[in-house]
Amino acid sequence: MIYLDHAAATPMSERVRYAMEPFLSERFFNPSSPFIQGKETRDAYDDAKRLIGSSIGTKGSSIIITASATESNNLAFTAVSDGGRILISPIEHPSVTRVAEARGNFEFLTVDQYGRIDLNDLKHRITPELELISVALANHELGTIQPIADIANLVRAERMRRLEHGEKRPIILHTDASAAFNTLNVSIARLGVDLMTFSSAKIYGPKGVAALYADPEIRLKSLVVGGGQESGMRSGTENVPGVIGFATAVSDAQNHAESESKRLEKLRQIILDGLGDRVRVFTPLKKSLASHLAISADGLDAERIIYLLEDRGVCVTTGAACSASKGVKSNVLLAIKATDSEIAGSLRITLGKLNDESNILDAVAIIREVIDTERARA
Amino acid sequence: MIYLDHAAATPMSERVRYAMEPFLSERFFNPSSPFIQGKETRDAYDDAKRLIGSSIGTKGSSIIITASATESNNLAFTAVSDGGRILISPIEHPSVTRVAEARGNFEFLTVDQYGRIDLNDLKHRITPELELISVALANHELGTIQPIADIANLVRAERMRRLEHGEKRPIILHTDASAAFNTLNVSIARLGVDLMTFSSAKIYGPKGVAALYADPEIRLKSLVVGGGQESGMRSGTENVPGVIGFATAVSDAQNHAESESKRLEKLRQIILDGLGDRVRVFTPLKKSLASHLAISADGLDAERIIYLLEDRGVCVTTGAACSASKGVKSNVLLAIKATDSEIAGSLRITLGKLNDESNILDAVAIIREVIDTERARA
Repeated sequence: MIYLDHAAATPMSERVRYAMEPFLSERFFNPSSPFIQGKETRDAYDDAKRLIGSSIGTKGSSIIITASATESNNLAFTAVSDGGRILISPIEHPSVTRVAEARGNFEFLTVDQYGRIDLNDLKHRITPELELISVALANHELGTIQPIADIANLVRAERMRRLEHGEKRPIILHTDASAAFNTLNVSIARLGVDLMTFSSAKIYGPKGVAALYADPEIRLKSLVVGGGQESGMRSGTENVPGVIGFATAVSDAQNHAESESKRLEKLRQIILDGLGDRVRVFTPLKKSLASHLAISADGLDAERIIYLLEDRGVCVTTGAACSASKGVKSNVLLAIKATDSEIAGSLRITLGKLNDESNILDAVAIIREVIDTERARA
Repeated sequence: MIYLDHAAATPMSERVRYAMEPFLSERFFNPSSPFIQGKETRDAYDDAKRLIGSSIGTKGSSIIITASATESNNLAFTAVSDGGRILISPIEHPSVTRVAEARGNFEFLTVDQYGRIDLNDLKHRITPELELISVALANHELGTIQPIADIANLVRAERMRRLEHGEKRPIILHTDASAAFNTLNVSIARLGVDLMTFSSAKIYGPKGVAALYADPEIRLKSLVVGGGQESGMRSGTENVPGVIGFATAVSDAQNHAESESKRLEKLRQIILDGLGDRVRVFTPLKKSLASHLAISADGLDAERIIYLLEDRGVCVTTGAACSASKGVKSNVLLAIKATDSEIAGSLRITLGKLNDESNILDAVAIIREVIDTERARA
């Protein structure tokens, strides 16, 4: 098997497994138990959150643990007051789009052919009613990196203006950074965001764990109330092994983001060179995650290609996994104005630790062959 | 260490670990991925949900996976329309009490000295505005088993009455069965509930996984929207290893509930015999989970006892773990009208797989000694 769907799921790393191991066996205690083993579990949990925080330049207390990036995104949107205006990009993950729809009073920003936010358009749409801007740091299908720090500057300027005018309404910037953690150095200070989603399952950590970074100034409303865990922001007995594994995964991803990015950049170039003009490339190669490559074998049926590739041991998908399985058109490709036949032939290749030069060369040869055979057949 | 806090946390069983293992390593795929490995993961996930369902006499499609019993309880309460009336017992877990408070328009039922619901009182409080009754199958601190099937009969009678009178308001029965799964056979049909919470972490399964059984007639509102997983009721990439482990844990717990109950009953009797009249017993011995024993060394300081026991390797708690760590008085003990000095001296012993006759005899000797020494000192 040659796995080219790292954006959908990643295998747990050995280091993550090793870190989790004691907490999957003898250290099974509830961190709220009053005896020493409980307290030690609490300490380990808090240490893990500190490690998560420090990996992105913040405190452990600014990290709210959740069960998925989807839950983090939903929690982020509770910062918006009833009727507060929301701006999102048209290429966000369904978990952002759906929660914006549920809240109402939201609009889509304008993006270019690569899915990149038009900053000028954004600037003109910052009005006094605006409460939340939510734009993913990097797009989950295209890999396009957004100018988040520039957006943050606009948000800060508007915040200053409101302060000067005595306007009480907050303006908040949220980014879903889930896709970016393996290949981008993520620093809260450098990005200037108020809320940030990131997830364990995409970075060789355990499944069922994610986080929302929240600036202490932001007032969220808990989606789940009860025992008051996570500073009252998300009740429920802590998933200690999950968070221990997540912390190792975050730390490792951030420590190796630069070198992994360079490594994957080369692999991606091998694919591009190998496929040549057989495909249209959607991903902007300069400003994108090196892990991502969205392409289209225009005129062909991607579902058939996926099936033929699967038969030869190559795992790719069309669009994001969650929408691919439902056979709906990718909102991302629609937003960048891909044609119907480009969408029908679209493939998403996402690279990661299971790839090296050898299996990428093999994969390219197989993909090329399948496309050529299908083209000849058509 | 002699662990007497099984209600707070349980170690994963070997069988659970074994079942999860492939999904923690080579079978790491996203069940929504379109290639064969994704589809096989989807099948394994659906099979696991079917096993969970069949263990309690229902379908896999009636099971909504969540991250905690707390989340399940919160989700259950979304069945209530704005302003619909709610009845809960005064000894519910904070996750039920807090969500009832958040919803508003709720009242506490009356309980006796063992925390048992007064059915006669309940009967008279079923009014046309009532939408939800939420009573835990067994109390998390006392182990008291509630007459859920009797409550279900009252609910059914009221439902019939509303049907006959053309009243559209639903009446729904929810039970949190989290504490009960190891020692009670739980059958949806026999209980007659519409919604039921249960959790993995308390039954030797992985942490961070739980479920809500929901009758297909009940209309819930998703707390978390996005990719539409769990039939749209709870979006977010599925925690496949967690659910695989959970399914094994549910099945094992239910297969051995009767024998485990008998085994723990004997161990609990050893403790009762050993402590004699040194303690007041809150738990009703006839109608309770055999795993639970809530007692009070009246006049002594439980926190000091816990500390002295910890020093001798015996792990117990005072009240539920989550409230114990905050030093607040147990709402359960207040509701059964325990005196201040009884509450101050209260201990919760919860038995499970880590206990056998030998370590229980040791534990009793130590607890007795600690209590006697403290009494002499006082």
